[in-house]
Amino acid sequence: MGLVVQKYGGSSVADAEGIKRVAKRIVDAKKNGHQVVVVVSAMGDTTDELIDLAEQVSPIPAGREFDMLLTAGERISMALLAMAIKNLGHEAQSFTGSQAGVITDSVHNKARIIDVTPGRIRTALDEGNIAIVAGFQGVSQDKKDITTLGRGGSDTTAVALAAALDAEVCEIYTDVDGVFTADPRVVKKAKKIDWISFEDMLELAASGSKVLLHRCVEYARRYNIPIHVRSSFSGLQGTWVSNEPQGDRKVEQAIISGVAHDTSEAKITVVGVPDKPGEAAAIFRAVADAEINIDMIVQNVSAASTGLTDISFTLPKAEGRKAIDELEKAKTAIGFDSLRYDDQIGKISLVGAGMKTNPGVTADFFKALSDAGVNIELISTSEIRISVVTRADDVNEAVRAVHTAFGLDSDSDEAVVYGGTGR
Amino acid sequence: MGLVVQKYGGSSVADAEGIKRVAKRIVDAKKNGHQVVVVVSAMGDTTDELIDLAEQVSPIPAGREFDMLLTAGERISMALLAMAIKNLGHEAQSFTGSQAGVITDSVHNKARIIDVTPGRIRTALDEGNIAIVAGFQGVSQDKKDITTLGRGGSDTTAVALAAALDAEVCEIYTDVDGVFTADPRVVKKAKKIDWISFEDMLELAASGSKVLLHRCVEYARRYNIPIHVRSSFSGLQGTWVSNEPQGDRKVEQAIISGVAHDTSEAKITVVGVPDKPGEAAAIFRAVADAEINIDMIVQNVSAASTGLTDISFTLPKAEGRKAIDELEKAKTAIGFDSLRYDDQIGKISLVGAGMKTNPGVTADFFKALSDAGVNIELISTSEIRISVVTRADDVNEAVRAVHTAFGLDSDSDEAVVYGGTGR
Repeated sequence: MGLVVQKYGGSSVADAEGIKRVAKRIVDAKKNGHQVVVVVSAMGDTTDELIDLAEQVSPIPAGREFDMLLTAGERISMALLAMAIKNLGHEAQSFTGSQAGVITDSVHNKARIIDVTPGRIRTALDEGNIAIVAGFQGVSQDKKDITTLGRGGSDTTAVALAAALDAEVCEIYTDVDGVFTADPRVVKKAKKIDWISFEDMLELAASGSKVLLHRCVEYARRYNIPIHVRSSFSGLQGTWVSNEPQGDRKVEQAIISGVAHDTSEAKITVVGVPDKPGEAAAIFRAVADAEINIDMIVQNVSAASTGLTDISFTLPKAEGRKAIDELEKAKTAIGFDSLRYDDQIGKISLVGAGMKTNPGVTADFFKALSDAGVNIELISTSEIRISVVTRADDVNEAVRAVHTAFGLDSDSDEAVVYGGTGR
Repeated sequence: MGLVVQKYGGSSVADAEGIKRVAKRIVDAKKNGHQVVVVVSAMGDTTDELIDLAEQVSPIPAGREFDMLLTAGERISMALLAMAIKNLGHEAQSFTGSQAGVITDSVHNKARIIDVTPGRIRTALDEGNIAIVAGFQGVSQDKKDITTLGRGGSDTTAVALAAALDAEVCEIYTDVDGVFTADPRVVKKAKKIDWISFEDMLELAASGSKVLLHRCVEYARRYNIPIHVRSSFSGLQGTWVSNEPQGDRKVEQAIISGVAHDTSEAKITVVGVPDKPGEAAAIFRAVADAEINIDMIVQNVSAASTGLTDISFTLPKAEGRKAIDELEKAKTAIGFDSLRYDDQIGKISLVGAGMKTNPGVTADFFKALSDAGVNIELISTSEIRISVVTRADDVNEAVRAVHTAFGLDSDSDEAVVYGGTGR
């Protein structure tokens, strides 16, 4: 029996009862002979409450101080969790990100882990303790300031510690039973996935699946740390994410892993762009300089009569205003006619390594959408993913149609609850 | 203009409005040319809420984890305060006790400061920042664990930092205007004291005055750091506590500094103690072994007929049960008859260095009590203090009578609010 890293999100430790329930689960793992390291998020709404306080004292909370503030959240949950474990007769010690050796760069509010030196954790484990570590936080290498890792940071803390401690597995406990073939709120017959490869999981995460964030999966793939996503409310096996199916589990890689969707993006169309070299570069340089992340890009065939073309791209809705402003500023320099902004779009993505060797997948995908009467506005593909943009109103119907067409529907009709994982 | 340390209690930073008000005051000090270090307590009821959470997960919260939990409170208030200051256009950085170099022993929940190494604070000040430091907390020298300093710990943090940074003054901001000649809730005509010596302040603190704790004053006296206790709600001068009146303030030392009272103690009488050497030692050894702090001790004259005597002592009510248990256990070994427990007592103390050279003070004190019809049960004296124990019901009347008799009554009848200082 080796070392296990367990991560519990905010919804699992939302109150004293939740903390006591999680403590029992941790002690069970210890009793089974494991060394246990636990990464914990802030309790329930704590982070939102702290952000609200910050906004009351300052309209633009400063990076360094904002991180100092937010890290109070995990300090509370980890200390309470350690107390609850001690109350069950087992030894536990809590550690801040800094004490656990989570070393980051100095980019406050979204720092990146650059090293993990878990000497104190190792000592605590060797002395028979369960180690509780604050997720989401670290300490900057140069200034020794407290940093936070941004959205999904606790998952990344867990995977990074698992890598540094050479753990058998990183268990991500959340309020759903695992990763599903589609969002169960949209597709009632969505199935829990027993095993999925890092590559397919990365594509799902990039396409709108919210159970695991891209960054955490990328880290796990780099260090080859198996992730087990499972519910903190049941004892069921969840979803394993790894290079190969683990141990005696005989799981064949499915042709299609799942269908993801995303309605958080908007589309900008730049109309009447002169069809000559350098125009697309000028457009996307203007957007990139404003640190806006764009997703899909499509350029229409130029109309022969005018020599003009249209370029469309998608980006997070929250950044739409800024992108429009930047493009308007550069309008004369770039020389386009006008801009169109559309935030009533949705994206549906089909993900599966099997599509590399099954040439019919793309055709089947488009047929399923066509049969459901869904009009396609943009298309983008990778080796193991195909994504389309449609009207936002069509997204749910499109996801269901594709899910059924690829034989992903479950036989049973069990109710599953699907939600966020905290941070 | 030199360096000033300011300390704000929990009631001064109870909400966003309070934090913004305090930020303005801090910026004013900076604008006046001072280098400013601010020590801040947790917001309002935060600490009580955290303690409540701890009790929900474990009936006996563990020392190390309990400290980890409680220190989240100052982390929140200090980060918010730094943000509020930056919002006023000034640079501020917040520091945990550990980052500020507050080094303590390893006694969790009531650690003692053994060193202060404020290198990061000095650097922040030299770079033009206002430094905000978490009160009440430190880091243990041997294990590098987070510790808390116990009740009144933030005041001690402030004085210790003022000493280490060679500050001009340590300003303790609270919700009252300063130290008064008596508790204004009891004596309407109590006067604010403009200046008081360390010695008199120590006696007042030991006798029930709650504005400053004994430990903080003791620290300030040892390093000769003037304390200025004042209201965070007004711009008024408060009470200076120092060796000598400061600068051009011509303040004569009063004969009597004030009247303190305390109804938090109980009295235990050990009845029928054989009047022979070693009996008192055996009694107080039993109590001391249980780490109970006793205050006054009185032994009656032995009755010649029986050779037995009674010994009475006072102690905090909260420790009464434990003391009774310890004494009962040692009953046979010590050889007394019985125990009496009385928690309906109060203590009135008159404090003033002038009583050393004014022999009539004691007589005047007893006459004032007698005229007010107050019966005296125990008496204890030091060079600059005289204390008596009475019925709890008589305390308020006794304090008023003594306050008037010694000419301490104010001419005006202004309303003052008197409360705790947080921690």
